[in-house]
Formats: sequence, C-alpha cells, structure tokens
Amino acid sequence: MERLPGFRDFYPEPLPHQDVGSADARSYLFDKWRGTARGYGFREYDGPPLELLELYTLKSGDEIVGQLYNFVDKGDRAVALRPEMTPSLARMVAAHERNYKKPLKWFSIPQLFRYERQQKGRLREHFQFNADLFGETDPAADAELIALLIDTLRAFGLTSEDFVVRLSSRNAWQEFFSKRCSDPARAYEFYQIIDKLERDEPEASRTKLSALGFSRDEVTHFIGAGEPTAELQAIVNNLAARGLADFVKVDYGIIRGLAYYTGPVFEAFDRRGEFRALAGGGRYDQLVNLISGGRFDAATNRVRGGKVDLPALGFGLGDVVLLELLKSRGLLPGFQPRIDAWCLIEDETWRGESLRLIQKMREAGAVVDYSLVPAKSDKQFKRALELQARHTLKVERDSAGAGVVRCKNLATRQEQVVAGMDAVRALLLG
Amino acid sequence: MERLPGFRDFYPEPLPHQDVGSADARSYLFDKWRGTARGYGFREYDGPPLELLELYTLKSGDEIVGQLYNFVDKGDRAVALRPEMTPSLARMVAAHERNYKKPLKWFSIPQLFRYERQQKGRLREHFQFNADLFGETDPAADAELIALLIDTLRAFGLTSEDFVVRLSSRNAWQEFFSKRCSDPARAYEFYQIIDKLERDEPEASRTKLSALGFSRDEVTHFIGAGEPTAELQAIVNNLAARGLADFVKVDYGIIRGLAYYTGPVFEAFDRRGEFRALAGGGRYDQLVNLISGGRFDAATNRVRGGKVDLPALGFGLGDVVLLELLKSRGLLPGFQPRIDAWCLIEDETWRGESLRLIQKMREAGAVVDYSLVPAKSDKQFKRALELQARHTLKVERDSAGAGVVRCKNLATRQEQVVAGMDAVRALLLG
Repeated sequence: MERLPGFRDFYPEPLPHQDVGSADARSYLFDKWRGTARGYGFREYDGPPLELLELYTLKSGDEIVGQLYNFVDKGDRAVALRPEMTPSLARMVAAHERNYKKPLKWFSIPQLFRYERQQKGRLREHFQFNADLFGETDPAADAELIALLIDTLRAFGLTSEDFVVRLSSRNAWQEFFSKRCSDPARAYEFYQIIDKLERDEPEASRTKLSALGFSRDEVTHFIGAGEPTAELQAIVNNLAARGLADFVKVDYGIIRGLAYYTGPVFEAFDRRGEFRALAGGGRYDQLVNLISGGRFDAATNRVRGGKVDLPALGFGLGDVVLLELLKSRGLLPGFQPRIDAWCLIEDETWRGESLRLIQKMREAGAVVDYSLVPAKSDKQFKRALELQARHTLKVERDSAGAGVVRCKNLATRQEQVVAGMDAVRALLLG
Repeated sequence: MERLPGFRDFYPEPLPHQDVGSADARSYLFDKWRGTARGYGFREYDGPPLELLELYTLKSGDEIVGQLYNFVDKGDRAVALRPEMTPSLARMVAAHERNYKKPLKWFSIPQLFRYERQQKGRLREHFQFNADLFGETDPAADAELIALLIDTLRAFGLTSEDFVVRLSSRNAWQEFFSKRCSDPARAYEFYQIIDKLERDEPEASRTKLSALGFSRDEVTHFIGAGEPTAELQAIVNNLAARGLADFVKVDYGIIRGLAYYTGPVFEAFDRRGEFRALAGGGRYDQLVNLISGGRFDAATNRVRGGKVDLPALGFGLGDVVLLELLKSRGLLPGFQPRIDAWCLIEDETWRGESLRLIQKMREAGAVVDYSLVPAKSDKQFKRALELQARHTLKVERDSAGAGVVRCKNLATRQEQVVAGMDAVRALLLG
C-alpha cells in the first residue's frame, strides 16, 4: 500500500529514508513562524482545507482549474482542496470584520494543494506561513508586513547575505502598461509575461510581448531604470529605520503572478539564486470587495458593490524551499528530543514504585521514559544513553530499608541518592 | 460566498459569532496534547490528508465508503480524505519500522473527514489527538497508553469526577461469541450490535441479537458480571501503581466499532453521561500485517503473510466533544494574547526611533505592537489598555536633549525613564 504521488509522510528523526519528510523539521519551522508572528502582534486563524471551486475561479477565471486539486463532492458541489489561503481569509474577513478592531493582523499555517497532470515527481501539497493585514492603506502597513517576513527568515539564522526581499509595484507596472496599451482587459496577460520573464526563454518572452505591442527592450529598460514610486520609497525608509535596509531592494523584475494584487508586491529570494522564490506577497485592496459580491468595473478599473471594502496585504512563505535553503546553509539543528530522565527498573519488585515516580515526574513537567517490560540492566542503561537522557533514576532501598531514588546526571556523571518526590523533581528540573 | 457545510472557520478570540470555531481554543488543545505526549516520550509524525480509498476499504469492506469523503481524482485514482489516522500510520510504520528502536511511541494531530449524505448540520471534519505504540504485546504498553490519555485529559483540569476510562476486551467478547456461535465470519456483525447497544432502541438490539442466535439477557449478564481478564487486571494494577485507579473501570459495555481491534479496548466518557465518548482506542495487533500485504486466514482467525508483523495499540481523542466538556465545566481559560509592550508614538518626529525600539524589543523576544499610522495620544493609550498590554513605551527627549524611553507598567502604574535598549529589555522581560 503506497501513499499518493506528490504527498509527503512526516517521520520522527532520524529519518529512515531520504524520500520522507521530517516531522521534527516541520515542527521547528512552525514554532518559529508562530513565535515571530506573535511577537508582531499577529493572531492565528484557519479555514477549511476544502472550499467551493468558485472561490478560486471568481478572481482567476476558469484557467486556474487546470492547476487545482478539484473534484465534485457527493452533494454535487464543485469543490477544490485549497491552493492558497488568501481567498478563504478574504471570505472570513468579509463575513466578520466588524467584530474586530482595525488593523487586523492575522496569520495561519495552512497545508495547500495543487494538481497539475503533467508534472511528475512534483509535490502536490506544501505548508505555507501566511500573514495578512487588513484595514490600512498606508505603506507603513506594507513595511510592517515585510519586516515580519524578514524577521521570520532571520529567526532561522539567515542573514542579509543569505536572502533579499525584492520589492516592486503593480501600480508602477500598471502605469507602464496603460501608457502603451489602451485595453485594460489585457493587463493581466501582460503581468503574466513579466512574472515569467526570468524563467521563460528570452525568445518566447519577446514574441509574447510584441503580440501585446511591447518591445523587450523597453521592458528591460523599465526594470533596470524605473524609479521607486513614493510608496516604495516610504516602505524602504520605514524598513531602514528598523535597521533592516540590507534585506530589501526595489526591483521591478518582480510583479507576482496572481491576478488580485493592486499595489506594492514583493518576493524573497536566496542571494545566490540557487532556489526558487522563498516567499511572495503584496497588496490586494480589492479582493475582499470581490469576494463579498463586488464586480469589476472597467470604467474605473476598480471592483465595486461588494458588501465589504477593506484594504489588505499579505505574504506566503512555503516550507519546501525554506527547508532546502536551511539545509544547504547548515542551519537546521539536530532534532534529538529532550528526555529529562530515564527510569531504570533493575529489580522488578520496585516496578510499582518506579511507575509512581515516573508519574509524579511527568506531572511535574519532566519528560520521562523507561522500559515497559523487564530488561537487562545494561540494555536499559544503553537505551538511556542512546536517547541522550539527561539523568537516570532508580528506586532502591536505603540502609534502613526505606525507598529512595538514585539520580545520576549523565553529563556530569554525578550521582545523588535522595528521598521524596520534591528532591527528585528539584534535581531533574532545577 | 459561503464555506462548505460541515466545515469550520477558526477565528481569533473574542469570537465574532457562535457559529465559528476558536483558533485560540484549538491552539490551547493542541499545545496541551503535544506537551503531554512529549512528556511521555512520544514523537510526532503526520501523513497525507488524502489517501487511496483502498487503504480504508481493505480492513472495513466497501460499506465504509458510504461514510467517507471520497472521490475520483484527476489521475483516475479512487481516493478519500482520511476518516481516521490509524491506517496511514500502519502504512508508514510498515514501510520503515526497521529504522526505529522498539517500542515506537508516536503521536499526531490530524484533521479527519467524513461525508454522510443524510446527516444535516453535522460536522464533516474534526481534529484528533492520536497516540500509538508499536512493538510491545505486554499489557504494560496498554497501561502506558491509557495513562497518557488520562493525563492528557487531566492537563485541562478535568478530574476523576469529570471523566472515566471504560476498559474492555475484544478477547473476552470473542470468547463469549465463539462459545455460542460457530461462524467466526459473523463476529464483526455481533461486535457492531454490542457497540451500538447503548444508543440503539432496546427492541432493535434484541431483534438483531436473536438473528445471530444470542439472547439480550445473556449479553446483559455478561456485561454486568463478566470477570476482568488477566490482561485487563494487569492494566488496572499498573494504572493503580501510578495513582490513576480512580480514572478507570472494567466495563464490558464497551467493544469499539472498528473491525481491526484485537485485545483490550477502551473509551473515555464524561461521568455525568452528558456527551458522546471523548476518546476511544485499543489494541490492533494484526493491522500492520494486513496493510503490508497479509490476508485473513479463517482457519487460525489471524492475518498472515504480510511483510511486517508488529503488535500495536492506540487511541484517538477528538477536539469537538472535549471542547464541549471543557466549556460546560468552566475549564476553558480566556484567550487574551500576551502583549509585553504597546509603543506610543505621540510625536511623529520620533517614529523612526520608535520603530528602531520596537524592532529591538521584538528581536529580544518581546511581543510589541503600536499604531501603524499617526493617531491621537488618548486613542493610542486606549488601544494599549484594550489589548491588556503589560507596558507602554514612549521615546522622548531628556533634559539634555538625548533620546530616552519612558516605560510604564500598566498593572502597577509605575513609570521609569531609561536610556539604552538593554535597560528597556530588562524592564519588559525581567
């Protein structure tokens, strides 16, 4: 019996095979993600892993379906395993934003899914750290969000020599586009070409651009010489005040593939260019309006008429590329779990007392393990060493015949014989 | 745009509506589950949320499909969103058990899914704490696992007056069955009737039992007067040695619905009988063999021929009933997130210095928040109070014109003016 192609099993370390995921590394990522987000005052939320297909086609059109893990459920609903978190979040925020003070600063760690028939060996799921901010149009919000992304990556030991956030602007690109093309309906097609510029063959890009009436040279010139908008400059200045200037650069080579971005956009990359993007995000001021019933109005180039209108921005940081980068930089720690004590039971008449001791120490917050069944003394001790237990405990009789506990610190090799649970607890937990 | 029926959105507290889940309560559950499992030396794992349908029909037959969230994927595979974790775990263990020392003590917190057409308003997903132990036949393993379940529930403040683990034995029931019925193929059908005895109408149970040749009276008598097997007595004694006797009772009214249980089985219930079962589990010594290619041999009543044969046991504890119980007993805490400091920016010329201070304090591990954009002083202070921030910070000029930080403890109302990041850090984080 095999698992489905493109899905990962997550095992405890040490990993039994190079083909499986590490549950310990995953926990390590999630804990750092949560810790940094909470430090910034972000609150956790989650949505369902399954949503109506319409939630995704609404903003991206039907062509997105070719990449989705979609199906028809037993109730004849067209549904999809979520390919990204933002539409679910926009739906949730639109439903209940009135009950929260603005700005909302929310984060989540969803598992996301996709299904492209032709891509063999490619993962069909990954986990993503999503942080989003609702209710603030000022670039100070974009800076706060980008600072969170930078500090999240720094929490793993990555420095400004390891990664950079490339900051761009859909506004700047839209201005560039509308000066040269009078059909706003083709803007998204243009953004798609720019988004793939660094990955596509030069000739293919050239052909696609000229079909829209653009020359490759004017695009190249804009990317190289475009001035930062006032908005981007405000973001850069804000980050510089925090001491984070080295982590960000304005770079119009970035535009983001998704349709819903409306303002500043950004992607984080490793400096050496060895990996795909680590993270990406930007402003999507019209999505909540769209999700809550609004329609695109071509005359004003705005979504209008939705129940809720709330400026928004966010980013997603995936687990796969981040893990690859941390591995290649030697930044993943060992994952030996903490064991405060291994309880040796060498005399089976003491098993009951040993279980009582184990129970009391676990209740006090210590991690305690032991041999479930009778085993030779040296085998038990060897297991304590393998697990890198900090102490061994052994219940025994003192000269007066009373039960006492022999506690050995396996690092210092110091042994002490103590009576009473409080004394053992003090030795284990300080 | 609505979410799918039977799925929950999880919002930060305070909850905007009674109809949504609490992301904070979910984190509270997950943290306690993880903490207790790690205290017992259990290691975390996870599998894919989607598996081949065959993984579930293999052990339960095709009738299970009516309850599954199953579909045919784009690659024409019959797949299902996982309804339980044990088959995935058995698959994972069978694939790589050789690389781990026995016994394996593993836990996971999967989201599980089901789809029953007729059940309106019923949840189609829930989260479950799963803990399993592989490689040990001794009842000491069953006791260790049940102790973990008891301590997990105790971690929330529940006592022996709140819940009890009802302990039973498939072996005892199998002996009862085989003395009275010569067709082992009908045993599972019999177990299903016993499993539903407390929920079905008495007359319906009576009819179903007599169709198999059993009288309701002999079943009732066995449940009331059946003696604990030696195995069950060993488990009870082991738990008593830990001081946990009050949390468990032998009770043959329990049998567990799933086909794969082979030995001791148990369910945890609230003492007042107000809720459905909190948790359930037991021994399933033949499942790894079955998942790794074994076949049921009617002559020996055993699964044989699989690549791996490993005794196993485990339990699942769901989030829904547990949350209901904790709420009804007043055991859910408030979920105001910790905010170490709110930074007041009353003079915009200090915004840059304030951002630097906020950055330094966040880097030191403090949770710090502030107004992203200029706001009136009293509005900023009011927000600090609403968020129950522990301190306010304000960058200002001292009499010599140098930048200093005014730090106010909002609980004691003490104010101090300090210079230098280290001094602020000491005030915030002690």
